[in-house]
Amino acid sequence: MVFETLRWIGGIDGCLELIDQRLLPAELVYMQCRTPVQLYDAIRTLAVRGAPAIGVAAAYGVCIGMQTAPGDTEGAMQHLDATAAYLAESRPTAVNLFWALDRVKARGRRFLAENPVADRQTLAEALLNEAHAICAEDKAMCKAIGDHGRRLVAHDAGLLTHCNAGALATAGQGTALSPMYEAHKMGCKFRVYVDETRPLLQGARLTAWELTQAGIDATLICDNMAGVLMRQGKINAVITGADRIAANGDTANKIGTFSLSVLAAHHNIPFYIAAPSSTFDLSIENGDRIPIEQRAADEVACLGAQRTAPEKMNVYNPAFDVTPAAQITAIITEKGIVEKPNAEKIARHLHSGALPTR
Amino acid sequence: MVFETLRWIGGIDGCLELIDQRLLPAELVYMQCRTPVQLYDAIRTLAVRGAPAIGVAAAYGVCIGMQTAPGDTEGAMQHLDATAAYLAESRPTAVNLFWALDRVKARGRRFLAENPVADRQTLAEALLNEAHAICAEDKAMCKAIGDHGRRLVAHDAGLLTHCNAGALATAGQGTALSPMYEAHKMGCKFRVYVDETRPLLQGARLTAWELTQAGIDATLICDNMAGVLMRQGKINAVITGADRIAANGDTANKIGTFSLSVLAAHHNIPFYIAAPSSTFDLSIENGDRIPIEQRAADEVACLGAQRTAPEKMNVYNPAFDVTPAAQITAIITEKGIVEKPNAEKIARHLHSGALPTR
Repeated sequence: MVFETLRWIGGIDGCLELIDQRLLPAELVYMQCRTPVQLYDAIRTLAVRGAPAIGVAAAYGVCIGMQTAPGDTEGAMQHLDATAAYLAESRPTAVNLFWALDRVKARGRRFLAENPVADRQTLAEALLNEAHAICAEDKAMCKAIGDHGRRLVAHDAGLLTHCNAGALATAGQGTALSPMYEAHKMGCKFRVYVDETRPLLQGARLTAWELTQAGIDATLICDNMAGVLMRQGKINAVITGADRIAANGDTANKIGTFSLSVLAAHHNIPFYIAAPSSTFDLSIENGDRIPIEQRAADEVACLGAQRTAPEKMNVYNPAFDVTPAAQITAIITEKGIVEKPNAEKIARHLHSGALPTR
Repeated sequence: MVFETLRWIGGIDGCLELIDQRLLPAELVYMQCRTPVQLYDAIRTLAVRGAPAIGVAAAYGVCIGMQTAPGDTEGAMQHLDATAAYLAESRPTAVNLFWALDRVKARGRRFLAENPVADRQTLAEALLNEAHAICAEDKAMCKAIGDHGRRLVAHDAGLLTHCNAGALATAGQGTALSPMYEAHKMGCKFRVYVDETRPLLQGARLTAWELTQAGIDATLICDNMAGVLMRQGKINAVITGADRIAANGDTANKIGTFSLSVLAAHHNIPFYIAAPSSTFDLSIENGDRIPIEQRAADEVACLGAQRTAPEKMNVYNPAFDVTPAAQITAIITEKGIVEKPNAEKIARHLHSGALPTR
């Protein structure tokens, strides 16, 4: 990719630099987060978004928090827990956020157990290394999803994607878009239809931008046009990302994904989810128990500063919906492809091979 | 209704006054059309829109054209034909436009055949009376659709509508919204979910506005949220308008309607079309032959003056799609309800009873 969605600058006293995605596609601006509050706001206001990228950013956010931790290692660990708890409140649906925070916390405890006389500085180094590892694994995960998924991208195919599950949603080359990048590298020609993805237009602003940057043939549509393109035979596969996948394969993703799965099933078009194994939440049996973030009415009722709906209009604005596993043709992870996903296949898949470790 | 979407001001030298719907919901402004060019632009740029309203406006547009017709009645008839041909180019999909223009032209010919020594002024009066008749019939049609359709609005129901097929789309109280207005008048309580209807937001700007003006409980959603509301059991019926209905019942309506019909079928939710008999085009066997207007890329790629997609982005922007008759539970017209519409039932329905005449 010609850009880096996020990167750590410096050592343990460094900061997290990330593309301010609120300004795309008009401007490519990097912002620096030097406090947990800045990072919390960046996540909450979608300067950084996408389940894997949120996870990586949160891991670094704990490291930023360590810079102002008081006193000894015990005080630092309490501060770490508090920072992690604070960052965990930034958004409720993407499980990668909690996964990454838990992992950094666990690394801190393990490090102190193994190094009882460690000082604050070496603890901070261990935590930063863990965040770097999460970031590196994220990049490797993206590449592996691309390698597994590229065979699903046929020559001359028309693909449909929703929201942004690309490089801008990860530290690497994306999840849903990674198979496209791999196929493109190998000379495969195909066309991608990009749902604009109301209300926040991540498809128009982010996916359209990164696909055209990469030289991939992309066409922007409104979300309500996907069905008629399918009916016209222009879509051969749908690929989206995921924010949380329950044990049985039910998948929470950007609002509108569920409708696409119904439309795809009606037209006998395969419907794929691409996501790292960290997106699975095996503590949740099925999708009914995934919490769905409700966002502000003005996201729907206004365009920028201009109000488009009447004042005081009731608005329903869930950020995500849940697609039942039965409507998912396959889930692509860094470990391979789970066809017709169900609880048993997912459990087997997640325990197969070695998960990438540092 | 507390507003009139369009109205003729004065006699044969008068003008057509209409709500400039481009300014809603921020401002309720009436604009006056005094030349066919002004009216053509008003239709093309959606200051007036909605298949029935376009038909009524075009009928009056011919009367405006007559004000500058040259010479004798023969010259006036040639001018009438030219004005009608010009206005017919304003938009391609809604058949009511052509229906209304043909009707005014036919009235002119019949009048001259019956009154061979008529002068230009009496011809102009006959044409204006025909336009007034079309307008009055449109109002009566709306009321009749409401009377037939109100029994489909159950107490405590959740209804979903798309785009605007309300009072703002007609000279009267609308088509798809008319059953809601009638049910509301009778004290029935229900909730309407309003698709915002990208790209031009007729749902957010127009339907939300007129329903809240009428005191009906309305909630605005993005188009991609309809599926998940259906899954939650919150939608008991979908009602939309139509821009053209083929002989077999295939229905062209605002882009996104087709997807709603698939989602409704998947959830066993009845899907209704409400439209006057003038929306049927029996010269077209099925929906494949309905011409679909393609509109400018900037409608999708920009929000007002602000560009939201990358420069030079490919955009696909059809204004309408076609819902197959098989996915339509019933079509409601001013003459009654056609359940499970097909060519035979539609032919019988359109020839049943007396069409309202002046």
